[in-house]
Amino acid sequence: MIYLDNSATTKPYPEVLHTYKEVSEKIWGNPSSLHNLGTQATRILEACRKQIAELLGKLPEEIFFTSGGTEGDNWVIKGVAFEKQAFGKHLIVSAIEHPAVKESALWLRELGFEVDLAPVTKEGFVDVEALKSLIRSDTILVSVMAVNNEIGAIQPIQAISELLADKPTISFHVDAVQAVGKVANEAYLTDRVDFATFSSHKFHGVRGVGFIYKKTGKKISPLLTGGGQENELRSTTENVAGIAATAKALRMTLEQAELVQARQAKLKNVLVDALKSYPDITLFSGHENFTNNIITFGLKNVRGEVVVHAFESHDIYLSTTSACSSKAGHAAGTLLAMKVPSKIATTAVRVSLGDDTDMSQMEQFLTILKQIYQQTEKIRK
Amino acid sequence: MIYLDNSATTKPYPEVLHTYKEVSEKIWGNPSSLHNLGTQATRILEACRKQIAELLGKLPEEIFFTSGGTEGDNWVIKGVAFEKQAFGKHLIVSAIEHPAVKESALWLRELGFEVDLAPVTKEGFVDVEALKSLIRSDTILVSVMAVNNEIGAIQPIQAISELLADKPTISFHVDAVQAVGKVANEAYLTDRVDFATFSSHKFHGVRGVGFIYKKTGKKISPLLTGGGQENELRSTTENVAGIAATAKALRMTLEQAELVQARQAKLKNVLVDALKSYPDITLFSGHENFTNNIITFGLKNVRGEVVVHAFESHDIYLSTTSACSSKAGHAAGTLLAMKVPSKIATTAVRVSLGDDTDMSQMEQFLTILKQIYQQTEKIRK
Ligand SMILES: Cc1ncc(COP(=O)(O)O)c(C=O)c1O
Ligand SMILES: Cc1ncc(COP(=O)(O)O)c(C=O)c1O
Repeated sequence: MIYLDNSATTKPYPEVLHTYKEVSEKIWGNPSSLHNLGTQATRILEACRKQIAELLGKLPEEIFFTSGGTEGDNWVIKGVAFEKQAFGKHLIVSAIEHPAVKESALWLRELGFEVDLAPVTKEGFVDVEALKSLIRSDTILVSVMAVNNEIGAIQPIQAISELLADKPTISFHVDAVQAVGKVANEAYLTDRVDFATFSSHKFHGVRGVGFIYKKTGKKISPLLTGGGQENELRSTTENVAGIAATAKALRMTLEQAELVQARQAKLKNVLVDALKSYPDITLFSGHENFTNNIITFGLKNVRGEVVVHAFESHDIYLSTTSACSSKAGHAAGTLLAMKVPSKIATTAVRVSLGDDTDMSQMEQFLTILKQIYQQTEKIRK
Repeated sequence: MIYLDNSATTKPYPEVLHTYKEVSEKIWGNPSSLHNLGTQATRILEACRKQIAELLGKLPEEIFFTSGGTEGDNWVIKGVAFEKQAFGKHLIVSAIEHPAVKESALWLRELGFEVDLAPVTKEGFVDVEALKSLIRSDTILVSVMAVNNEIGAIQPIQAISELLADKPTISFHVDAVQAVGKVANEAYLTDRVDFATFSSHKFHGVRGVGFIYKKTGKKISPLLTGGGQENELRSTTENVAGIAATAKALRMTLEQAELVQARQAKLKNVLVDALKSYPDITLFSGHENFTNNIITFGLKNVRGEVVVHAFESHDIYLSTTSACSSKAGHAAGTLLAMKVPSKIATTAVRVSLGDDTDMSQMEQFLTILKQIYQQTEKIRK
């Protein structure tokens, strides 16, 4: 099997599952319980929070655990909107956000909020000048992802940070779900960023766990109210085993990030060179300011699903861009926002490399690509 | 160690952790992915949904996975409120609901909803006549828990179902988090119930997983918007391993429920008889319409924490009623709603029996109780 769908989800590291099992078996108490078992659980929980904070260069009290990227995005978008509605009801999210951000913003429209979508260039980067022109006196939130999940474009978080430098009343949210280990933390966790969203299963952690970064002093209304476990801002009995697994996955991922990025850069070069040699292949992912792990392309006239299934029959797994849109059969929202014509956008397939993807796998991939290219000759005409 | 805090959380069954690990290692694909790994994950996911539905006598499409009891409660309360606000903005929740329900309802007040708390009798049961008198033409939701987490009182879901029989526009929600395996499913999943909340870690499953039951045709707005994974009503990459673990835990729990209940009935009798023999002990949990697993009591003038820590020094773990309120040092909300004077309510400690609690453990508990009773003689005066 060759797994090239690492942006959809990653295989948990064996060490991560080991940690999950150990904690589940030994430190399974409820951190809210007053007794020993509760105290032990609290200790682990806070040690994990501290470790994650340190790995990101932040403070422990700035980390809040969630059930994943979707909850994190929903919480920030809706929580900031509810918190700040007395000051303004205008939000700006980029046109290429993950549905967890975009749908959350659009849901707020029904409650009387106004939402503008910041456009992107034809290469797939948020147009900072256009974003600037959308800002109003009642804008309360700007949300732009760090790395786009459909083509790997690294968004201009630095430039937007500068743009927002003198607008302290606007909360700045960054969906960092696809960024961890792919770009340096500092690239998307600038001092101006107020909130950021993370998801464990995208960096070889476990499903159903994530966290947000909330800058000290920034206000947000809770999305999950109840026992008040996360400093009164997010409730539910803490998933201590999942959180310990997540801390371990983050440490392992960041420790080897440079090495993996260098290896993936080589793989990407080989793949891109090969793709460019086919006249009927369109490359949607660019080079500069793109991560090394995502390469999205399309075969002329051939729907993405067809290509995915053709590779599947050789035990090679990829996706038609994001996992979310693939089942619904939608064209990638990012490509449409880049003004790629819809007929071309539906050809898109996404190769997303893993920590362990190697050159021999890439060569096998290219061999099969050649076959598929030849087999689709008639359709491509 | 004697663990008598099973209502706070339970130890995952070894078989449950085994399933979690197996699925995480072997079927870790994203169910939304079009390829084989995704298909396998979808198959497992839907098999679990079917199994859970069958165990509860419901349909698979009526089960929606969540991150736990808190998300389920928040979703139902807020989701029904948002969905139905055009028809009415009045909600009724009982005065003894878990904070996940109560705080969610109170949060809605800030958005212009009206919330009434249905009172309870001095024994701890929702007063159905009083509830009836709170119903208005604009009431959209009634929420009453199946089993109270602080004293084990089984709430009159049947009677409330009859009350609501001719009021089909009112959604009826039951928080069933403490009910699974403690009372028969039919006792709280009546035909009139529209929504019910479940949490895996309360029945030896894993932390961070739960599900809601939503009756076919009943409308609810999503709380977590995004990729639309749960039939467009709840989003996030599915926690397939956690869900498989949950299905297994539910099956195991329900299979042995009768046996466990019978064993716990004997343990409760022994404990209650002993408690009654002490003149300075107040029993807060009653007999009829109470579960066998929760026994809450207090030592005159002795704060609950003191008793918890006294037992802890003998490696016996219990709680000051709910885990949520214990750290905050609040008196149990349920006792206050029962009009227990606050000074007496702060003495409460909760013994919550597990599937494996046995008579020898109970005898050890009673030996230590005797000691603690003697040691606190001066305070009790
Ligand atoms: C950019 C981005 N944001 C958010 C999410 C949602 O994360 P999760 O699946 O943990 O809910 C994903 C992936 O699904 C993503 O790629
Ligand atoms: C009655 C009740 N409802 C809801 C919850 C919340 O469940 P969870 O911890 O899974 O969020 C609990 C326990 O914490 C509970 O006892």
